[in-house]
Amino acid sequence: MKTMYQFASYFSREEVERVHEASLEILENTGMYVRNEKARQIFAKGGCQVDNQTTLVKFPRKVVEECRKSFVPKYKFTAQDPDFDVTLPDDRPIIVTGSSAPNIIDPKTGEERRATSTDIANIAHLINELPGFDVFSISTLADDAPEGQFSLSRFYPALKNCKKPVRSNTPNIRDLEMVLELGELIAGSKEAYMERPFINHHYCPVVSPLTFDVESTEAVIYLTEKGLPVYGTIVPNAGMTSPMTLMGTLVVGNAEFLALSTLIQLIRPGAPMIYAVLSTVADMRTGAYVPGAIETGILQMAHTEMARFYNVPSGGYIGLTNSHCNDAQSGYETGMNTMLALMAGADLFNMGGLLGSLMAFDYGKAYTDNEIAMMLKRARRGMEFSEENLCLDLIKEVGPGGSYMDKLHTVKHMRKTPYLSNLAYRKLRDQWIAEGSTDTQTRALEEAIKILKQENPARFPEELDAKIRSHFPGLVPGDAIF
Amino acid sequence: MKTMYQFASYFSREEVERVHEASLEILENTGMYVRNEKARQIFAKGGCQVDNQTTLVKFPRKVVEECRKSFVPKYKFTAQDPDFDVTLPDDRPIIVTGSSAPNIIDPKTGEERRATSTDIANIAHLINELPGFDVFSISTLADDAPEGQFSLSRFYPALKNCKKPVRSNTPNIRDLEMVLELGELIAGSKEAYMERPFINHHYCPVVSPLTFDVESTEAVIYLTEKGLPVYGTIVPNAGMTSPMTLMGTLVVGNAEFLALSTLIQLIRPGAPMIYAVLSTVADMRTGAYVPGAIETGILQMAHTEMARFYNVPSGGYIGLTNSHCNDAQSGYETGMNTMLALMAGADLFNMGGLLGSLMAFDYGKAYTDNEIAMMLKRARRGMEFSEENLCLDLIKEVGPGGSYMDKLHTVKHMRKTPYLSNLAYRKLRDQWIAEGSTDTQTRALEEAIKILKQENPARFPEELDAKIRSHFPGLVPGDAIF
Repeated sequence: MKTMYQFASYFSREEVERVHEASLEILENTGMYVRNEKARQIFAKGGCQVDNQTTLVKFPRKVVEECRKSFVPKYKFTAQDPDFDVTLPDDRPIIVTGSSAPNIIDPKTGEERRATSTDIANIAHLINELPGFDVFSISTLADDAPEGQFSLSRFYPALKNCKKPVRSNTPNIRDLEMVLELGELIAGSKEAYMERPFINHHYCPVVSPLTFDVESTEAVIYLTEKGLPVYGTIVPNAGMTSPMTLMGTLVVGNAEFLALSTLIQLIRPGAPMIYAVLSTVADMRTGAYVPGAIETGILQMAHTEMARFYNVPSGGYIGLTNSHCNDAQSGYETGMNTMLALMAGADLFNMGGLLGSLMAFDYGKAYTDNEIAMMLKRARRGMEFSEENLCLDLIKEVGPGGSYMDKLHTVKHMRKTPYLSNLAYRKLRDQWIAEGSTDTQTRALEEAIKILKQENPARFPEELDAKIRSHFPGLVPGDAIF
Repeated sequence: MKTMYQFASYFSREEVERVHEASLEILENTGMYVRNEKARQIFAKGGCQVDNQTTLVKFPRKVVEECRKSFVPKYKFTAQDPDFDVTLPDDRPIIVTGSSAPNIIDPKTGEERRATSTDIANIAHLINELPGFDVFSISTLADDAPEGQFSLSRFYPALKNCKKPVRSNTPNIRDLEMVLELGELIAGSKEAYMERPFINHHYCPVVSPLTFDVESTEAVIYLTEKGLPVYGTIVPNAGMTSPMTLMGTLVVGNAEFLALSTLIQLIRPGAPMIYAVLSTVADMRTGAYVPGAIETGILQMAHTEMARFYNVPSGGYIGLTNSHCNDAQSGYETGMNTMLALMAGADLFNMGGLLGSLMAFDYGKAYTDNEIAMMLKRARRGMEFSEENLCLDLIKEVGPGGSYMDKLHTVKHMRKTPYLSNLAYRKLRDQWIAEGSTDTQTRALEEAIKILKQENPARFPEELDAKIRSHFPGLVPGDAIF
């Protein structure tokens, strides 16, 4: 469906090509540290210059350019329920929750505390119900995880309560293998799981500037070799891990994306990827990490322009807020950066539900971000150009000075033309005061709790659940209970 | 200064041309009611078919197309202080306050009440100090206006306390002439005023669908004949005064813009104009007027594409909120629609300081909108492409795994690369709690009050003020007092 004719861009074609050239220069002349040994072997075999002593790898231009030929333009998120499958860029904007916060704002006390596996189950239930969200990236950690079940305690409640694509990471290969075992149990067999791999893996294998780590890189290699879905996010932070100019941060991030892509394409040419970033500028007055700043959106737009040049889907953690409560700052930081990225053509938005950068999940924030997501989707749907929608006959019929209020055409289109919100307050002030002068957060939290109090229709069948629980003794309950 | 390479657009060139053609068809076949007699005379003389009985005017295609040839691509807002002059589109985005609200949220009690001329003086002082705002469109009415001084009681406190371009409307020609007299007194002479006409006039002469009114149309004619700056905003509301499709509302609004432009260009070919709109979609579940909805931004983008086709500056009331308090909804409604319009290439943004659609001014909201304005301006400044900003030597010097934190380059650029906010909360949660867990509105109101408590450096010299006050006996005090 064609809905936008042209995306916003900062760069001319020549400027994009210069950034690409500069990235190749960096990879060829400066190179990257590659802490993971297997990755160094892959790079060496692929034609890179590898120094195993220092771990420095230099990437000849022709190696990178050769790998670039096998980039593919699509990336699919598979869901337990095939109706929830989504593909980038076709289904853009793909709205994803923000992930892996250690804390949650307790919906009953309003206090911040460590999040648990039961919180994950409840959040999974909510995200399954909110139409703005397409992918559930597991929002928090689970502080109650039994020893040896750090990742299981996150993926089990998530998969048990949400039929949309579930996305997250794991700290090591042992955890990753347990999570894949869980997936195979749910699918019924290894073959069935490989057919529809509904666990969507994500890592940050590059530590800026220009360094591959050990564990996340290992996971990316492992999954790519198996043909399972995985992508990485590139996260330079200007002033700390990249230069204090937007162009310098872009080119470092772009070089890192190309290096990661080279690794993936050397392993399995044609493996789907997303050009995903969380490129930021530090507030050097205090050294604060500020993903909510407008520079995050500006950098996202620039990276998306590079992704368009490479013909791969793009996006990232865009729309995070630094605010600790769901106030005006939370609204404009999430709203402005996501709209900027949407107009720039980004496909993937990790934006929902977190406060304080990536520190705490909040139900009211998640419900509000669902509203922002619906507005982004309406903006993407656009003007719906057609002769019928021009309504020239109706305009003639109503004539100058007439009214459209009582027209059948109005009744017919009043629910599909606009996005009809049930969160935004639209009544008059007197009514607002009579109804308690509530702010958005108060109403959003109430609406979220209404959903949480309902039965979750998306749970595992009992038989399957029993099988999983006997396979993984000591597993957390994983039930949505509010 | 070239900062963006390409704007976002929904339409192909062919689609834009179809909207233009359809607008011409409407004007030629359906026509418009023109309630103002002088306007009918101008249209008749210009070659339109005028029925004085019904007031229906039909616009032959060639009349409209001929007038289109004299459209000019720039529009200037003149200020009392020439340093504050701004020109569209060069200085885009031009950020303007929302205007003519009847009420204010009292900054001391938090209660809504009628606004007064002293409120206007205080608001003028604040807007003069906030760097995000370029034009002060007089935010409220003055409930304390003496009889016969409705408009003077607004323009006098505004001009007395703000050296930026002041913009507003008047209800009739008598008021308009008094306001122009005030301008000439301030300028020192009629000639000096005509040289730099720092009162910027704005009207809504078209009542959708397809009707010119009497009084506002009269003012537009009066000012255009005199060569003074004036522009109009077109305000169709889908479901009420235009069809319940975005395309139908666009084409009605576009026809209305062309008719208004034809009037202006028939009077004075080459008169500068802005393609300004507040095209909205009604929430027909209740009939609510919802300028904060995302459809307002989508329509703004489409109108801006039409304006680009006509090669005139564009914008409008974009970034209004329906919320009655400066909460998350207020943040995302103002933030999302303005960012959408910015990426679409709009030049003018009437967005600052109002709550509840256009019902009440709020100081905290105005201070927060200044922040949003600064973020929009940073987004417009963009990536700042240059070889120097690519920092390739620095990237080589720091190398893989290095740090940019202690580099002189970082110190040198840390204040000019990002927009450094003093409103957005960026510290850790513990500090936030220790500092009182404030939300944005609380901090924004505090910051606004800090400014209001300072002496206003922008006031009239005493001698001039005495001259004005003796010329207009009984004038409101017009001083910023907090």
